[in-house]
Amino acid sequence: MIGIDNDIARGPGHAEAVTEPAAARANDGPGTGGATGSALARALFTPDVVALVGASADERKNTARPLRFMRKHGFAGRILPVNAGRSEVMGLVAYPSVAALPESIDHAFVMVPGAQVIDALEQSAARGARVVTVFSDGFAELGEAGMAAQQALAARARTLGVRLLGPNSIGVVDVHSGAILSVNAVLEMDTLQAGPVSVISQSGSMLGALLSRGAARGMGFAKLVSVGNESDIGVGELVDMLVDDAPTEAILLFLETIRDAAVLGPALRRARAAGKPVLVYKLGRSAQGEALAQSHTGALAGNDAAVDAFLRKHGAMRVEMLETLFEAAPLAIRHARTVPALTRAPRVAVVTTTGGGAATVVDRLGLANVEAVPPPDAFVAHMAARGVKIRQTPIIDLTLAATSAQYRDLVEQMVQSDWCDAVLCVVGSSAQFHPQLAVKPIVEASVTRGKPLLAFLAPDAAQSLQVLQAAGVPAFRTPESCADALACLFRAAAAAADDAGSPSAPPTPWPPHLPTRGNLTELEAAAAFQALGVPIAAAALVRGESLAHTVPYPVVAKICSRDILHKTEIGGVQVGVRDNAELATAAARLLANARQAAPDAHIDGILVQRMEDRLLELMLGYRNDPLVGPIVVLGAGGITAELHRDVSLRPAPVSLAEARQMIDEVRSTRLVRGFRNLPHGDVDALADAIVRFSHLCAMQGVTVDEAEINPLFVRASGVVGVDCVLRLAEPQT
Amino acid sequence: MIGIDNDIARGPGHAEAVTEPAAARANDGPGTGGATGSALARALFTPDVVALVGASADERKNTARPLRFMRKHGFAGRILPVNAGRSEVMGLVAYPSVAALPESIDHAFVMVPGAQVIDALEQSAARGARVVTVFSDGFAELGEAGMAAQQALAARARTLGVRLLGPNSIGVVDVHSGAILSVNAVLEMDTLQAGPVSVISQSGSMLGALLSRGAARGMGFAKLVSVGNESDIGVGELVDMLVDDAPTEAILLFLETIRDAAVLGPALRRARAAGKPVLVYKLGRSAQGEALAQSHTGALAGNDAAVDAFLRKHGAMRVEMLETLFEAAPLAIRHARTVPALTRAPRVAVVTTTGGGAATVVDRLGLANVEAVPPPDAFVAHMAARGVKIRQTPIIDLTLAATSAQYRDLVEQMVQSDWCDAVLCVVGSSAQFHPQLAVKPIVEASVTRGKPLLAFLAPDAAQSLQVLQAAGVPAFRTPESCADALACLFRAAAAAADDAGSPSAPPTPWPPHLPTRGNLTELEAAAAFQALGVPIAAAALVRGESLAHTVPYPVVAKICSRDILHKTEIGGVQVGVRDNAELATAAARLLANARQAAPDAHIDGILVQRMEDRLLELMLGYRNDPLVGPIVVLGAGGITAELHRDVSLRPAPVSLAEARQMIDEVRSTRLVRGFRNLPHGDVDALADAIVRFSHLCAMQGVTVDEAEINPLFVRASGVVGVDCVLRLAEPQT
Repeated sequence: MIGIDNDIARGPGHAEAVTEPAAARANDGPGTGGATGSALARALFTPDVVALVGASADERKNTARPLRFMRKHGFAGRILPVNAGRSEVMGLVAYPSVAALPESIDHAFVMVPGAQVIDALEQSAARGARVVTVFSDGFAELGEAGMAAQQALAARARTLGVRLLGPNSIGVVDVHSGAILSVNAVLEMDTLQAGPVSVISQSGSMLGALLSRGAARGMGFAKLVSVGNESDIGVGELVDMLVDDAPTEAILLFLETIRDAAVLGPALRRARAAGKPVLVYKLGRSAQGEALAQSHTGALAGNDAAVDAFLRKHGAMRVEMLETLFEAAPLAIRHARTVPALTRAPRVAVVTTTGGGAATVVDRLGLANVEAVPPPDAFVAHMAARGVKIRQTPIIDLTLAATSAQYRDLVEQMVQSDWCDAVLCVVGSSAQFHPQLAVKPIVEASVTRGKPLLAFLAPDAAQSLQVLQAAGVPAFRTPESCADALACLFRAAAAAADDAGSPSAPPTPWPPHLPTRGNLTELEAAAAFQALGVPIAAAALVRGESLAHTVPYPVVAKICSRDILHKTEIGGVQVGVRDNAELATAAARLLANARQAAPDAHIDGILVQRMEDRLLELMLGYRNDPLVGPIVVLGAGGITAELHRDVSLRPAPVSLAEARQMIDEVRSTRLVRGFRNLPHGDVDALADAIVRFSHLCAMQGVTVDEAEINPLFVRASGVVGVDCVLRLAEPQT
Repeated sequence: MIGIDNDIARGPGHAEAVTEPAAARANDGPGTGGATGSALARALFTPDVVALVGASADERKNTARPLRFMRKHGFAGRILPVNAGRSEVMGLVAYPSVAALPESIDHAFVMVPGAQVIDALEQSAARGARVVTVFSDGFAELGEAGMAAQQALAARARTLGVRLLGPNSIGVVDVHSGAILSVNAVLEMDTLQAGPVSVISQSGSMLGALLSRGAARGMGFAKLVSVGNESDIGVGELVDMLVDDAPTEAILLFLETIRDAAVLGPALRRARAAGKPVLVYKLGRSAQGEALAQSHTGALAGNDAAVDAFLRKHGAMRVEMLETLFEAAPLAIRHARTVPALTRAPRVAVVTTTGGGAATVVDRLGLANVEAVPPPDAFVAHMAARGVKIRQTPIIDLTLAATSAQYRDLVEQMVQSDWCDAVLCVVGSSAQFHPQLAVKPIVEASVTRGKPLLAFLAPDAAQSLQVLQAAGVPAFRTPESCADALACLFRAAAAAADDAGSPSAPPTPWPPHLPTRGNLTELEAAAAFQALGVPIAAAALVRGESLAHTVPYPVVAKICSRDILHKTEIGGVQVGVRDNAELATAAARLLANARQAAPDAHIDGILVQRMEDRLLELMLGYRNDPLVGPIVVLGAGGITAELHRDVSLRPAPVSLAEARQMIDEVRSTRLVRGFRNLPHGDVDALADAIVRFSHLCAMQGVTVDEAEINPLFVRASGVVGVDCVLRLAEPQT
């Protein structure tokens, strides 16, 4: 368990102001005792004086790289090599230890064997370093022993008031200043183009791979950070810093897990508010990938669907394809602020000289629920009046029809039109042989303000891609990445709107008569849900001595015990009890069954509950995801959720708009939403119940670990829960 | 309806010998009256004398390209330009018409306006051309009028005994001989590398895009064909020709629709038998893509899932990503013959210097049900004895551990080991800067015979990709394409084995007492299914006058009429009839309801059917897909199939192995396959019923258009159908 912050149980911090940087908030956060915010960012990214601890004079060694890289890429600050065996490294005076350095330092990059790291840390702190980046491995990635060493290292850093990046970090790079505290081989490249894209990666080697792929396309970068084991500075705090980093216009995350949801969530929201898109590639779409990331990072086993919902809610754009991660950046930089939140499928106008090529993107867009729309009559007429004849098809094919000027005019008119939400140009063979010519109309049209304009190039056309990149036109090398990026853009806009309608959960007092830890009985759980305003079937607890109650017959009789969670399995439930006599018989039998199956269970009595009718059974659940905190799950009832994966997740609290989306996402709810003349269920009441249930995250005085209403009956009028489970966290020791 | 062959209704021709080329079979096929097989292939791909009809002398025009291309790429045959207005074209004597040519020709490439095409065709036939390729458009792609012109053209060609490629074909290319009868701009490239990959495309422009992308990776090509509107020569016949084409080792198809399933199916099987993999990218994964392909090609609306099942059964490897189409070719060429058919998930050993990079592939492999396996103890020990220390993880990370020689040795040992089915090397940054060095161990190990060996390069590393390509090592640019290709390879092997176990359907005589056209009554449909050995609930038909029957009570009583297909909706069904008295009452009511709802319906009487118990209700259907012919569908019963898309499809006839897979693919069948202690259903009987039902495709004397058993009850012992529908085709006029 590396760096899992206990704050997670408090949820992703929705109540906090999203415009306040993490530094100002993190009084008890990971920054205690060290620099935060702009002071940390300065030392981390643009230090004046750096120590290279363990710098080799042997050019072939990794540890010789940072010095060479900084010289190659024009670092103007002072570099102090530390090498126990040499007084000179590549023409610079070298010092035997950090303690022996002649001046104070801002940032130390530590490349010595793991056992010597703590010494380097101590000495760096003594020489004034605000941050120490540890390349050395031999820590948490090795398992338990390494974990202990890492915890000791992080604790020592806290005491010393120095911040820690890593260990097992391949380093940190500021492309603009040439401050390259990294051994990443990719930085051998002769020119590091400065630009607006920053990258934070949980994989050191993938940081290099992304840089090399982006650079090959002419993309410029700002900051590059390998977080390593995240023993102190984590992804969330880095995102937060980059929101305030002027050169950074988009932030790319390569994630294997999430270790700091409580910091990352608010940081993502600040980024969104600041108009800086955060694009995320996260491993774990398959169970195999998830298991791998866990074993690889020592992370907890979270649920990828929960992570997905978390990222979306807080404004990150999670891409599906690796290449989309950087290809989507220009699109996001240009349009993430302005793209509208749509409550219908986004519509894209497609213009092309290659019908087949365009169809490859349109097919993928269909999978992502983005619609290729034909131009309306008025637009066809409008273009005809301008001398451009187009057909009313979802792909407008210009194969033989148009000159370059007409192509440009068409694209310009589309970008300014109101019948589409984006314009996609798909370019054919000409992109390969006449790069300037082929994309010229697109580049020229791209200066027109309006809808997002993007391009996919069907042939291999590296030069055309670079021309488009240089002009700031988002351009894509594969149809899959193109569709992925466009879908992400609109999805993020819609998620932002839904989330904006999400007030923080109202703090609700925990009902005073209920336990504050452990399992609740069904009746107690029902009381907790009712305190939030979630409708639960009328019920009464009766005991062996007196079976008097006021619940109208017919009723269900159930054994009531906090020690028996699976009542049905032990014969603890009797449905269709029609009168007092039947209740007496049933109660005796239920108690006998319970005593036999669970002799040690404390039995509160018999729960008598009104038999409710329904149109549909659903399941409404709540749990604390180990990675991203409180999550609400709506699912089909019975075994359908499991057999057909018919569930929808959202982080708590859930807004009304989000609740409605959850309902739409659970396919089984179609049965009460106008399916084949079946009667309609009360979807409004269902949405309201989901919202209220999600407020379990703000119950005062307790922490809910897990809760479930299963089944929740949807009726023509209203909804009603008929079985309730709730488990509270044990108090922290 | 372009070129939909009526043969389709006969099914994809399983009874035919798969080693016999289409030419020998197609006595009544599209080749009637023209060259087929090797004679056609010679004239089409390697003509000695070609006419370029409409060749321009203006270098800027498309129509000037074929001549320029053939000169550039070394065509050694004779080229005869035909130009009505010039006596010379680019230094060659030009002729005013085809009729005026001084010698006979093998192949004419026609680029004149649509209206002049039929003239060119007539004259080409007269000058001895065996095949005419028509670039000209203005035919079926324009709609009805164009369709008529196209049908006239094709009919004329048949009469003349000349074969037709197109119209609306961008042409045909033989890379080895430089015979380039094509205007595709991509052929401007200075060097056309000859090689083992042939491409057939329904999109002319995508043919160019694929060639350019493959060429950029160092891939060599054999034949390239744009089929255009497929008025005569179709994809199937071309595949069949390429099976016999020595230079062709893999066939790539870019498809928008399927117009010749009856030819394509057997051709795909011949390709598989010949060890020539056929890789397919087909549009239509989304409904939007499917609709587009239909409108674009004028094709019938088939079902993409049916096409998918058809391609798989007949041995094609359908890829998901566009780039996979060519990236998978080297993998398929090398291993499609030898990769085993597995009945478990394929296992891949992954070795890397970039854990994050490897994880991106492994995550995608997980989605495709391919398992990344850790090495077993014995192998770890084996490698330790050879001086290579590896950990027992699903991704073997060699970051700091190994020399190049050790890396090579490890890969060689893996390739020869028996604990994995393939070996994947994921290369990091070194691939970018030291291409030779980074992939050297892989290239060297690749000469070792054994499991498939493939590589994914995490950074941008074009040179390393080319080094691997040159060495014949399958190499991939994106993790998605890499996983897609590997999954396809194993899926195809498994499909081949399942299909091999599929004897052709036994011809079954149509029961003589049944109608031979139109809708059958439930009782008649039941009789047809029973003739195939499919168990149907015992039933008897009784009439108003006498209700005597021998079916044991309780029974279901249903109105029996070929004119009433939806009995329940009109009150035509009564369940739970317990005795003769109840039957009399029910019968009267059902008849009254039927007379009111459908006064003109001919009513045969009341069907009395035994009430059957069941563990699970399924739906078993059969239909004639307009693109790919007879298809069997197994689905969840009731609304589950529709709500949760819980269905599985296979072309008929279905083998026992395929039937078992269908059962596995329908998630709802888990309920009778050991789900949470629920009782087991008779899966063997279910599989047997599916196989028998699929033999509807071989009923003698009739053509079944559509049939359904819904519900089909699965019981602890046996299965039984309780409602039967069957519609026969009207006799062809």
